[in-house]
Amino acid sequence: MFAEIITIGDEILIGQIVDTNSAFISKELNKIGVSVYQITSVQDDGKHILNALRAAKSRAQIIIVTGGLGPTKDDITKHTFCEYFNDQLIENKAVLKHVETLFAKYINTPISNINRQQALVPSKATVLHNANGTAPGMWFNEDNTVYVSLPGVPFEMKHLITNEVLPKIAREFNRPYILHKTLVTYGLGESALAARIEDWENNLPDFIKLAYLPNLGKVRLRLSAKGPNKKLIQKAIEVESRKLSKLIGDLIYGTENEETLEQIIGQLLTKNKQTLSTAESFTGGKIAESITTIPGASAYFKGTVVSYATSIKIDILKVDTEIIKKYSVVSAPVAKAMAENVKKLMNSDYAIATTGNAGPTKGDSNAEVGTVFIAIATPKSTIVEKFIMGSQRERIVEKSVNKAFELLQKEILKF
Amino acid sequence: MFAEIITIGDEILIGQIVDTNSAFISKELNKIGVSVYQITSVQDDGKHILNALRAAKSRAQIIIVTGGLGPTKDDITKHTFCEYFNDQLIENKAVLKHVETLFAKYINTPISNINRQQALVPSKATVLHNANGTAPGMWFNEDNTVYVSLPGVPFEMKHLITNEVLPKIAREFNRPYILHKTLVTYGLGESALAARIEDWENNLPDFIKLAYLPNLGKVRLRLSAKGPNKKLIQKAIEVESRKLSKLIGDLIYGTENEETLEQIIGQLLTKNKQTLSTAESFTGGKIAESITTIPGASAYFKGTVVSYATSIKIDILKVDTEIIKKYSVVSAPVAKAMAENVKKLMNSDYAIATTGNAGPTKGDSNAEVGTVFIAIATPKSTIVEKFIMGSQRERIVEKSVNKAFELLQKEILKF
Repeated sequence: MFAEIITIGDEILIGQIVDTNSAFISKELNKIGVSVYQITSVQDDGKHILNALRAAKSRAQIIIVTGGLGPTKDDITKHTFCEYFNDQLIENKAVLKHVETLFAKYINTPISNINRQQALVPSKATVLHNANGTAPGMWFNEDNTVYVSLPGVPFEMKHLITNEVLPKIAREFNRPYILHKTLVTYGLGESALAARIEDWENNLPDFIKLAYLPNLGKVRLRLSAKGPNKKLIQKAIEVESRKLSKLIGDLIYGTENEETLEQIIGQLLTKNKQTLSTAESFTGGKIAESITTIPGASAYFKGTVVSYATSIKIDILKVDTEIIKKYSVVSAPVAKAMAENVKKLMNSDYAIATTGNAGPTKGDSNAEVGTVFIAIATPKSTIVEKFIMGSQRERIVEKSVNKAFELLQKEILKF
Repeated sequence: MFAEIITIGDEILIGQIVDTNSAFISKELNKIGVSVYQITSVQDDGKHILNALRAAKSRAQIIIVTGGLGPTKDDITKHTFCEYFNDQLIENKAVLKHVETLFAKYINTPISNINRQQALVPSKATVLHNANGTAPGMWFNEDNTVYVSLPGVPFEMKHLITNEVLPKIAREFNRPYILHKTLVTYGLGESALAARIEDWENNLPDFIKLAYLPNLGKVRLRLSAKGPNKKLIQKAIEVESRKLSKLIGDLIYGTENEETLEQIIGQLLTKNKQTLSTAESFTGGKIAESITTIPGASAYFKGTVVSYATSIKIDILKVDTEIIKKYSVVSAPVAKAMAENVKKLMNSDYAIATTGNAGPTKGDSNAEVGTVFIAIATPKSTIVEKFIMGSQRERIVEKSVNKAFELLQKEILKF
C-alpha cells in the first residue's frame, strides 16, 4: 500500500519557500506503516492539479494534497476537487459556525463574504475539523482511493495530520509494519565504509534496505525493513545491526532514532542534575539556540555570552588582554579562557566555548578562514581542540556546532 | 519553456531529510528566466526514476535531477541514465584525475575501486566539473531535451548549479524575462486584504499573477510577471505595485526582494556606523544567530547575553532583584532593564531584549505560555511592548524574533 503527497503552490516552484510539509507528512505516515511512493509539487493551476491527481491515483491508494485552501482567488483546490469528482460546493453548517467562532474570538469583526466561503465544501467530502484555522480538511473516498485535502500552513496541516488524518487511516486500512534504524558513524568516508561492509551488505535479506547518508563529517547508515510481522521485522533489524556493529564498531558513534545530539546531552545533564553554559564567538549564539529549542532546557541550561566583538571577550568574559595579544583571539588559550570563565561566571558544571574565523574576511584575528577552536570545560578540566572547517561560512558554523556537541557528549560520558 | 526538477532518494520519501535543493534550484532558474513546472521526489529505484524522467520529458525542456550519484550500492542514477539513453559507462580521464587529486589532498590514502567508479560516466554525457566533490555533474542533450544530473549533497549541487549549469543554460537557450515583486503587509488578515483589493485584482493584466502568502502575522503579496520584453515587464510591475500602494499603503511594511529584515537592519547600522547587542531570555540566542548568519555582521554586532536562568539576569545583566520580585521575570520592567543594561555592558548604540514564556510549562515566572515582552533600547530611549504569541513553543520564538527585528527597524528609521 502506497501514499503520495501533492503540494500545491507557485511559491514552492519559484523557490520562495522550502516545502517542509512533505517531510513531516512522510515521517508521520511511515510511523503508522504507510510508505510514500512519490512527492509532487505543482502550480496553482487547475489543469496541472487534475493531471497530478490522476497520475497519483495510478500509483497510490492514499493521496494527500496540501495547499490552495485559502480564501483568496489564487486558491483553487476546492474547485479543482469538484471538477475531479464531478461534484459541487455546498455550505457546511459546522464549518461556518467554527469560522464565526474564530472571528468572534480573535478578529472581533463580523465575517465577510470571503470568509464565509471557507465553509463551502464539496458535497462528497467528509470534513476534518481544523482547530487551528478556518480552512477545513477534507477526506474523499472514491474508486478505492482516499484523497485528503489539507491547508498548506504548516501549523494547521500538522494539527490535522496528527489529530484527524492518521487516526482515520489507522482505522480504515490494514498496514504493514515499517522500521528504520540509523547508525551514525564518524571517521571514514562513504566509499571506504562501503568497502568494509560490502560482504555483509550483499547478504542482507530482501526485505531490508541499506542507505548511506553522508553529511558534514558523519555517514549515517539507515536500515529499513517492512513486512506484516512486527516481531520478525524488529528481530531482523536487531540481528543485522549487531552484525554491523561487529564490522564497524570502532566507527559507530550512536544510533539515531528521533533524537538529536542536543536532546541526548539534555537528558544526560538532567539525569546528572548538572548545568551548562556557552561562550560563543563565530557561532554567534547557534549553540545556545540549538540547546534552547528543546523543551525543558531551562532545567540544565544557564545561558550564553555571545562575544562577537573582541571587547566583549575582554570586558565580560574577562579573557586576559595579554593572552589575546600573544596568541590572537582565534587561539587555543583564548578558547580555554572563554570556556573556563563563562563556566565560572554562570556557575555551571560544563561550558562550551568557540572562537574561530568563519569568513568571508580575516576579521579581528589573522587566522585563516575556517580555523576554529572549540573548548569544553568540565567539572575537572578543560579540553581544547583545533579544527580546519573548510571555507564556506554556513558550513563552518554548522560543522562546529555539531563538533561542539560531539565533544561535550564525550566529556559528559567520561564521568 | 519549462524546467522540471526530480530529486532522488528514499531519505526524502521517509521524511528523514527536508528537500531544500529544489527551492534553491527553482530560485536560481527563475532568476535567469526559466520557470519550473513541477518538482518530483522519487525513490532510489530504477523503474521509478525512468518513469519520472519520461513523464517530465512530456512537459519540460530542461530536466534537472539531483541525488543518487554517491559511490555506494544504493546510488543508481548513472546506471539508470544509461538504461534511459541506451548508453554505457566509460571511464573519464579528467574525472579520475580529479578524484585522485582530492584523495591525495584530503584523505591521504590511495583511491579504492569504489572511488574509481566515480570516474565512470555515460558516454553520451558532457561532464560538469564538481570542484567540491568526487561525483561529476552530467549534461545530456537528446531529442530536444536537456537532462542535468547533479549530486544531492547541497554543498556540491549549489556549486555546480551556479558555476556550470546556469551559465550553460544561459548560453544555449533563449529565455523570457521573469520578475517577482513581493509586498509585505501587516495588520489585516488574508481575506480582509483580498476584499479591499478585489477590484484591482480583477483588472490585473493577463501576464501578471498575484499570490497571497500569509505567515506569522504577515501577509506577503507576490506579483509575478513573465514575458519577452524586460522593460515592459518591469514597467507593468511598477505600475501595478503603485496602484496597490494607493489601496493599502497603510498596511504595506516593505518590499521583499532577496533581503531579510536582518540584512536591511545590518545595512542601516553599517551606514550609520552604529552597533547592536542583545539580551535574550526565551529566544535563547536565536536573535543573535539570525544576525550573525549575515557576512559582515561583525561591523555592527557586538554580542549577546543569553540569560536563560534568572540568576544570569541578576548576576550578569544586573537586573535589580527587587524589580524581578515585584513584577516577575516576565514583565515590561525586566525587559526594559535587560535592554538598557546590555546596551551599557556592551557599549552599543542599540539593544534588543526579550523575556517571555515559550512553554511548555510556566517556568520561573507565573506568566501564561505565549506571554512575551520585547524591549528596544535606542540612543535616546527604551520602548517595551507586550505580545501574546499563541501556545506553540517554536512559533512563539519565531514570531518574537520577527517582531523584535520589526520593532528595531522602526526605531532605527526614526533617527
